[in-house]
Amino acid sequence: MTREATDPKAAADALRAGDRRALARAITLAESRNPTHRLQAEALLAEVLPDTGDALRLGLTGVPGVGKSTFIEALGLRLLAAGKTVAVLAVDPSSQVSGGSILGDKTRMERLAADPRAFIRPTPTSGSLGGVARRTRDALLLCEAAGFDVVLVETVGVGQSEVAVSEMVDMFLLLLLPGSGDELQGLKKGIVEIADAVIINKADGDLLPVAQQVAADYRAALRLLRAPQADWRPPVLLASALTDSGIAEVWETVEAFQAAMTGCGAWQAKRARQAKQALWRDLRESLLEAFDRDSRLAQEAQRLEQAVEAGNLLPALAARQLLEAFQKAPD
Amino acid sequence: MTREATDPKAAADALRAGDRRALARAITLAESRNPTHRLQAEALLAEVLPDTGDALRLGLTGVPGVGKSTFIEALGLRLLAAGKTVAVLAVDPSSQVSGGSILGDKTRMERLAADPRAFIRPTPTSGSLGGVARRTRDALLLCEAAGFDVVLVETVGVGQSEVAVSEMVDMFLLLLLPGSGDELQGLKKGIVEIADAVIINKADGDLLPVAQQVAADYRAALRLLRAPQADWRPPVLLASALTDSGIAEVWETVEAFQAAMTGCGAWQAKRARQAKQALWRDLRESLLEAFDRDSRLAQEAQRLEQAVEAGNLLPALAARQLLEAFQKAPD
Repeated sequence: MTREATDPKAAADALRAGDRRALARAITLAESRNPTHRLQAEALLAEVLPDTGDALRLGLTGVPGVGKSTFIEALGLRLLAAGKTVAVLAVDPSSQVSGGSILGDKTRMERLAADPRAFIRPTPTSGSLGGVARRTRDALLLCEAAGFDVVLVETVGVGQSEVAVSEMVDMFLLLLLPGSGDELQGLKKGIVEIADAVIINKADGDLLPVAQQVAADYRAALRLLRAPQADWRPPVLLASALTDSGIAEVWETVEAFQAAMTGCGAWQAKRARQAKQALWRDLRESLLEAFDRDSRLAQEAQRLEQAVEAGNLLPALAARQLLEAFQKAPD
Repeated sequence: MTREATDPKAAADALRAGDRRALARAITLAESRNPTHRLQAEALLAEVLPDTGDALRLGLTGVPGVGKSTFIEALGLRLLAAGKTVAVLAVDPSSQVSGGSILGDKTRMERLAADPRAFIRPTPTSGSLGGVARRTRDALLLCEAAGFDVVLVETVGVGQSEVAVSEMVDMFLLLLLPGSGDELQGLKKGIVEIADAVIINKADGDLLPVAQQVAADYRAALRLLRAPQADWRPPVLLASALTDSGIAEVWETVEAFQAAMTGCGAWQAKRARQAKQALWRDLRESLLEAFDRDSRLAQEAQRLEQAVEAGNLLPALAARQLLEAFQKAPD
């Protein structure tokens, strides 16, 4: 154990100085399920909170095979070339199964990973979605405190994590394959509607005409299905990470979105709303953790939840009983 | 005060006997913000819970002007003719402004309101969305206990109440106007994607060709944007409440949906999931109410929430402080 691990001020100083190992250690601390580590992580986060908020928080999703890693690497290298620093956090539910996600990500984004101005880190996905979301948000804040200009949170578009990620970033990008609607059925419903921009990736070679048609279809669909939000109509772009085409346009779109949202105050309003949402989700998470620590409470919570699911107990009554049990329990 | 108001068993008996006045009183009790009334309502609901769950719970939304009331009346009269009883609950955020929503609804659905086998009731919309959702769910259960075959929950497609309603019904219908996408911009984003069936209303006379085109557009869009859910692809139907055309097809679609969902177990699974969601929403609601009853706690909650929104306090820390304050407070 270094001094940093127990002294939040020392850890905060190392973090603010941009020390990568300090950042990696801080994220590990925030990810720990050990309550002592959690408290240390929260002390550190409280210490560096004034240093957060300056990065552009970008979310990105797409089904496996859409080319997320290649796309992120192309975008990341472009940002580095423009003098920006980039942190990539990957929330990958499949990493639990396959194992070795860290190696996988770093192998997939070789050139980006090799650059000292970039930082790549998978987020563990064990535990409840609420827990994963909190740990990813914490990791995002720690990257900001370490001074990264852009923090990109990547997720696989097949579960519930996309919505969680979209609720912690400023802008959410959806990567699609140049295929017909039927080929895209793996995408969870509702994802297209939370995207601030849709990007048809692999728009190169023989697939270019298909990609153009798909883009036209999505433009028509988005026109029908989505109301304009604070002066922003989600564009549908073509890109090819392979030929590096369209990547510059994607970044221009991100900057245009930021300008439009900042101009009308929607940027800050969204962040405030997201923080408030996080508070109530964390409250649920904290309550569950408190119940987990007390086996009698845990049993009671499980019993109440099952009775509610079976339709034998009114949700409102179960909620009251849960809170009463919590209030009566010795801490 | 009748005996029913204080004796849950007597109130439950009257409700189960199908006494309309008892139902109306029970809903009023459940809607009350008086804690004593709430406890009485919960006692009554606990008493009749075994008698709930048999109705088909149908949600319906659409922007003002789409013809919801005329459509519901046409559908309701058809169900009555088929020997079914119908309860209509209307969640209308605009009723707070216009007032006299009860009169409005009954005037709008004159023929349905006049039939003793139908029951029409607006749900008050004051208070938080969580509170409104809970009271609407309670009213739905009370209608079920009173023996209605179909409970239809209507909402205006412009706010957050649609998602809340979609989370308490078995099937959610979206009514659209036969106009271009631009004319539909009043619809909140995401609504199309939570619909189990889309109905283009007012598909009659000069508007019929337009409605057919709009239906084709939505079919194409839904094919692109939505993954099939448990053997169900949301259909796009044409209807005219004015000429009573397409109403029978809507009901056939509802029955086909029920058959498909029941067959694969998705019907009961959805209800169990909804009840569990309700538990955690009610818990938040109960916690807020507990804070409201204690002015020091209320101030503390407000202070913490504002600090989180301003980015000065970590959501997880605020959540823990809120729970600690709650646990320490005298009941």
